[in-house]
Amino acid sequence: MTSSMDFLKPRSVAVIGASRDPVKRGHRAIKTLLGDGYKGRILPINPKESEILGLACYPDLASAPGEIDLALVCTPAAALPDVIRLCGQRGVRAALVLAGGFSEAGPDGAALEARSMEAAREGSVRVIGPNTAGIFDAYTGCNLVGWPGVYAGKLGALCQSGNVAIALLAQSHKNGQAGFTTFVGVGNEGDIRFHEYLRFYGDDPNTGAVIVYVEGFKDGPAFLEALREVAVRKPVVLYKAGRTDKGEGAARSHSGSLAGNYAVARAALRQAGAILVERSDEMFAVADMVSRTAGRPTRRVAILSEGGGPISQAVDALAERGLDLPVLSADTEARLKKITPNATQLNNPVDAGGGTDPHPRYMPACGEAILADPAVDALLIVGYFGGYQVRYGTPLAEAENEAALKLAAFARQAGKPVIVQCHYAEFQTEAIDILRAADITVVRSIEIAAACLAGAEEFHRIATAARETKQVTATPRASEASARLVAAARADDRQSLLEPEALELLASEGIAVPPCAVLRTPDDAKTLPAALSDKPVALKIVSKDILHKSDVGGVKLGIAGAAEIEAQSAVLRAHIGKTVPSADIAGVLVAPMAAKGVEVIIGVTNDPQFGRVLMFGLGGVFVEVLKDVVFRTLPIDRREAGLMLDEIRGKALLDGARGSAPVDRERLVSLLLDVSRLALAHPEISEIDLNPVIVNADGYTIVDARMLLG
Amino acid sequence: MTSSMDFLKPRSVAVIGASRDPVKRGHRAIKTLLGDGYKGRILPINPKESEILGLACYPDLASAPGEIDLALVCTPAAALPDVIRLCGQRGVRAALVLAGGFSEAGPDGAALEARSMEAAREGSVRVIGPNTAGIFDAYTGCNLVGWPGVYAGKLGALCQSGNVAIALLAQSHKNGQAGFTTFVGVGNEGDIRFHEYLRFYGDDPNTGAVIVYVEGFKDGPAFLEALREVAVRKPVVLYKAGRTDKGEGAARSHSGSLAGNYAVARAALRQAGAILVERSDEMFAVADMVSRTAGRPTRRVAILSEGGGPISQAVDALAERGLDLPVLSADTEARLKKITPNATQLNNPVDAGGGTDPHPRYMPACGEAILADPAVDALLIVGYFGGYQVRYGTPLAEAENEAALKLAAFARQAGKPVIVQCHYAEFQTEAIDILRAADITVVRSIEIAAACLAGAEEFHRIATAARETKQVTATPRASEASARLVAAARADDRQSLLEPEALELLASEGIAVPPCAVLRTPDDAKTLPAALSDKPVALKIVSKDILHKSDVGGVKLGIAGAAEIEAQSAVLRAHIGKTVPSADIAGVLVAPMAAKGVEVIIGVTNDPQFGRVLMFGLGGVFVEVLKDVVFRTLPIDRREAGLMLDEIRGKALLDGARGSAPVDRERLVSLLLDVSRLALAHPEISEIDLNPVIVNADGYTIVDARMLLG
Repeated sequence: MTSSMDFLKPRSVAVIGASRDPVKRGHRAIKTLLGDGYKGRILPINPKESEILGLACYPDLASAPGEIDLALVCTPAAALPDVIRLCGQRGVRAALVLAGGFSEAGPDGAALEARSMEAAREGSVRVIGPNTAGIFDAYTGCNLVGWPGVYAGKLGALCQSGNVAIALLAQSHKNGQAGFTTFVGVGNEGDIRFHEYLRFYGDDPNTGAVIVYVEGFKDGPAFLEALREVAVRKPVVLYKAGRTDKGEGAARSHSGSLAGNYAVARAALRQAGAILVERSDEMFAVADMVSRTAGRPTRRVAILSEGGGPISQAVDALAERGLDLPVLSADTEARLKKITPNATQLNNPVDAGGGTDPHPRYMPACGEAILADPAVDALLIVGYFGGYQVRYGTPLAEAENEAALKLAAFARQAGKPVIVQCHYAEFQTEAIDILRAADITVVRSIEIAAACLAGAEEFHRIATAARETKQVTATPRASEASARLVAAARADDRQSLLEPEALELLASEGIAVPPCAVLRTPDDAKTLPAALSDKPVALKIVSKDILHKSDVGGVKLGIAGAAEIEAQSAVLRAHIGKTVPSADIAGVLVAPMAAKGVEVIIGVTNDPQFGRVLMFGLGGVFVEVLKDVVFRTLPIDRREAGLMLDEIRGKALLDGARGSAPVDRERLVSLLLDVSRLALAHPEISEIDLNPVIVNADGYTIVDARMLLG
Repeated sequence: MTSSMDFLKPRSVAVIGASRDPVKRGHRAIKTLLGDGYKGRILPINPKESEILGLACYPDLASAPGEIDLALVCTPAAALPDVIRLCGQRGVRAALVLAGGFSEAGPDGAALEARSMEAAREGSVRVIGPNTAGIFDAYTGCNLVGWPGVYAGKLGALCQSGNVAIALLAQSHKNGQAGFTTFVGVGNEGDIRFHEYLRFYGDDPNTGAVIVYVEGFKDGPAFLEALREVAVRKPVVLYKAGRTDKGEGAARSHSGSLAGNYAVARAALRQAGAILVERSDEMFAVADMVSRTAGRPTRRVAILSEGGGPISQAVDALAERGLDLPVLSADTEARLKKITPNATQLNNPVDAGGGTDPHPRYMPACGEAILADPAVDALLIVGYFGGYQVRYGTPLAEAENEAALKLAAFARQAGKPVIVQCHYAEFQTEAIDILRAADITVVRSIEIAAACLAGAEEFHRIATAARETKQVTATPRASEASARLVAAARADDRQSLLEPEALELLASEGIAVPPCAVLRTPDDAKTLPAALSDKPVALKIVSKDILHKSDVGGVKLGIAGAAEIEAQSAVLRAHIGKTVPSADIAGVLVAPMAAKGVEVIIGVTNDPQFGRVLMFGLGGVFVEVLKDVVFRTLPIDRREAGLMLDEIRGKALLDGARGSAPVDRERLVSLLLDVSRLALAHPEISEIDLNPVIVNADGYTIVDARMLLG
């Protein structure tokens, strides 16, 4: 599978539509390949030419010699099916299609794309694009995008927008030329999709971190699967466009992609191991950082500076991103005191100001002492360092460069990540170059520095969690009883299960439901079991035509005793008969009144991009007003279910707010797992809503259950 | 008041402790003044020298000629009281004290600072600092900080940290040299405080926007007052450090300042008109932007680009900051179609890609059409523009520079703000210089561009709201009855009012409270009014020793009828007698059971920095678990009280979630105003908690009231 994608670093490129005309793509592409010193063979194809830019030109693919890894297609869109067919006949492994005018442009384009992909399948040709900015590989010099100045480095870039990739390139030019491995513009995902490219990066030895810019996936579940595999061994820094309704609109119209609900996308991508960034200006820096930290932890950060203000800002930025400032040991403090006796503050944050400036030598000395402290995972230097030569003038350059070298050596020695925020980062000093060359990320923004540390810690967490055994669950099977219930509803041409059916289905899958009964007629109340006639109960109308019972007055609460139940169920039927005369009434459900506890909601939906999604959160009125819900794609394990409980804002309610006992977490987690299993076993159930479920110290009670059929 | 602060642009500076030694501050300061071409008189003071750097040196202040606006004190901290005294005798208007070792350094330093300030008051000398980085004024060339390369521009900088100011300077160097007016390092606020400096900027004709970096205020209410005056006519971009607990710690230890609760600070500063930024990397750009937009609106933004990805990112960034993307008119769309017939997308966002690059001329042409659309407030260009000459090479420079000039002209003509996000902003092209010189902000980050637009819109809102008449309320007076209640509690040496007293006080100030009664003995139940003996009531223990009644079982709910009330109040007393034997029981409060509705909390506290603060939010269990509360400093007007209702996350509950009727907003707003008035009339009441207050369509019911005495 892996080796099949090495046409992304092709040993030979045929340029179909090669040209002698300098303004044509088929000319410029060859010129760029030559200019970037492409190490493979270039095979210009054009029946009218015999030589282009000093290279032999071949009339057609058939006459070009040797194996052809990749064909760069510079011909117009309409010719694509034929071109691909010829590629297949010649045994060309892959075709890169730059032209637009395919599925992103409307139905005609979509048909053309479909015909082209059909030809590709027949000829076993893989297709990159169409409608892509191209690809480049900095190590083979195979530049098929035409952008100048691509530096080789450790970052893979997988982008659904060429312009975003160009923005990243521009940043690399101002970031000590931190560079790239392979860039892929995915375009329309006509054939090769995000997940296949991602696996390529996962196996690419040059790539230290992958930057993914995505607007929408054609195959979300496959991407999640690839992400789960890759992200544990290689950081995947991902920006998902379309976070807001408006953003989603823009993304859709841009690439003809399916961009789904961002809350679900965020949860799904994080769950699968992506390091999500939500600012375009953090993508490059975070990727640069995580490509250097190799999964080491960075949660416990020590701050070192020569002045108070930037320290305060750094403390805010770190705390807001969940990072800690450990207290340094007495030993470290004593060492620091020896180095800078006049320091303003010796413990974390360390403000060496008062005695240091303008002497850059204090930075590595203090850094060494701090990094030796076992309480510290990583060091963040904020302020002037790297720019002393700007701030105090060039005479300080030598001392500062030496300090930078020393700091780098100490960092290596300690085996702990160091990041430098420098007000003068844009001045591109020698000291900054030295730091970057020694694997120390340097940024100008305090907040971006904090984001880098948070990203590195997240990769540490992902890589560490992966070491725990993962249970791979086969798709669960539905029980016979539950399959029968669904089949019966379908035979009845219904879009949903009746509430008693939904409860029965839950029970048949081993989920505890309250003891209920259905009164086909009011008279049935006479034969109710004692459990239901002894205590106050709830009466609910049962009708396939009524989904929202409360809205039509279809619920009565606190009715006690068989006689009263009989009378009130008759009243209820009469009421519905008047308010919803068209409703087919199947009966009245009698259910015990729920115990006191926290109202939660457990739901399952189908996300258009990522498939089965489980929702958990505060239920009842909370769910609509406070929208305090979290998501996971299915399946989930016990740990992941526990995380869902911890992530809601109202978590304290579960832990026992205001002196009430904590809810039974174990049983709630089990319920989440049971519902997940049920949902996977029943793909024909498109939506499940258990709302509210009352949870308390004794367990849970499912008060209302709704299931829609897809 | 204003003219008294013009020593910040001094016409003459005496340097006390002037020196011929090049490493001494008293030498470097003079050198910098000379080097920056200071337009005023420099008066070196040193009894041992007659000439320094070519300037006549005077043995003491008395012998220096002419008026002296400012004395720069370069002598050690211990000498300060004497130096200030001499300044007073000589009629020096102000002294700038750079030295540290004062209140920030401990009790001894604080005593030294106090003695110095005493001398200043006696001699009518104003003091800047101590422990300040200094001041500069770019227009008079009065550089008393010693930083090189201060560019003159429109930004005032008022900072509690010299290092933060230096970071801003560094950014100005990479931002087309957008520059500064006056910088003030406030230091310890020994004499002159934030609010006086702010008023100086408010009246300074050179200053177009003020950047304030603050860790803590010595006089918060005075700052708010100054802010309210200044912020409506001049944008004040403010970063308040100490947002997190840890941040607050760092701020405290840095400047010996009082940094309070950030939620309160944020509310107070916004309410008074600050444009709050919470990222250090947004301070400069937002200030630059608002200094150029002159209060024009920027809510309805049109995006123009030549590629999809950055557009999607911009759409996300704008939407997240509450800005809108209006639909362009058919006319505008037709104009755009003529200009770029191959554009990918003609309506907002406008993606001119597909036909434009590499032709920068399309940018001003499309920009002109878009700016003419009445639905558009402002234009955001994202992508390459400004950097076509980098992206496509220098041959495009001329065309791009011309395009920049045209765009600027169109922007001026339309009278609408334009901001350019350019991937190549750090490459400092000529085109970018042209844009910036023409009042168009250029930034590299899409998110910072969005923050700039949001900041500009906020200033528009602040400046517009100011045009509505403001009612200035005199401090309200307490009613005689309420004053008596407080006096009685105090005479009784109590730290709080009993609940019946708190309710009585509310009533005496015209606030509706439910009809309650206190049973001194259970027997009193026999004489209860019918209103209380007819319906279910709540019984609550009344004791100065019990603040949290529910926690000790001091509440009984749903008791009906005089006999039952009598019996249960006896049970309640007995129960408390056992569980809290030390409690002095004053009686049992009988209150009607509250109607159904939304539980809210209304509270008043004293913030250590900003004084009286009103809190509103969801009450009951919500307040502790969800912390869905908002704050305002007092007094507030009706509009502001209404905003509080709109700002809580659970707003939908007030609007009538799930089919219930909306609550009576008017009466709730009136209650907020009444409570505010009450709090201002009773400075001796340190805390008020009305929780819960039940609100519904019929009004409100105060279910529980607690008042603490300060």
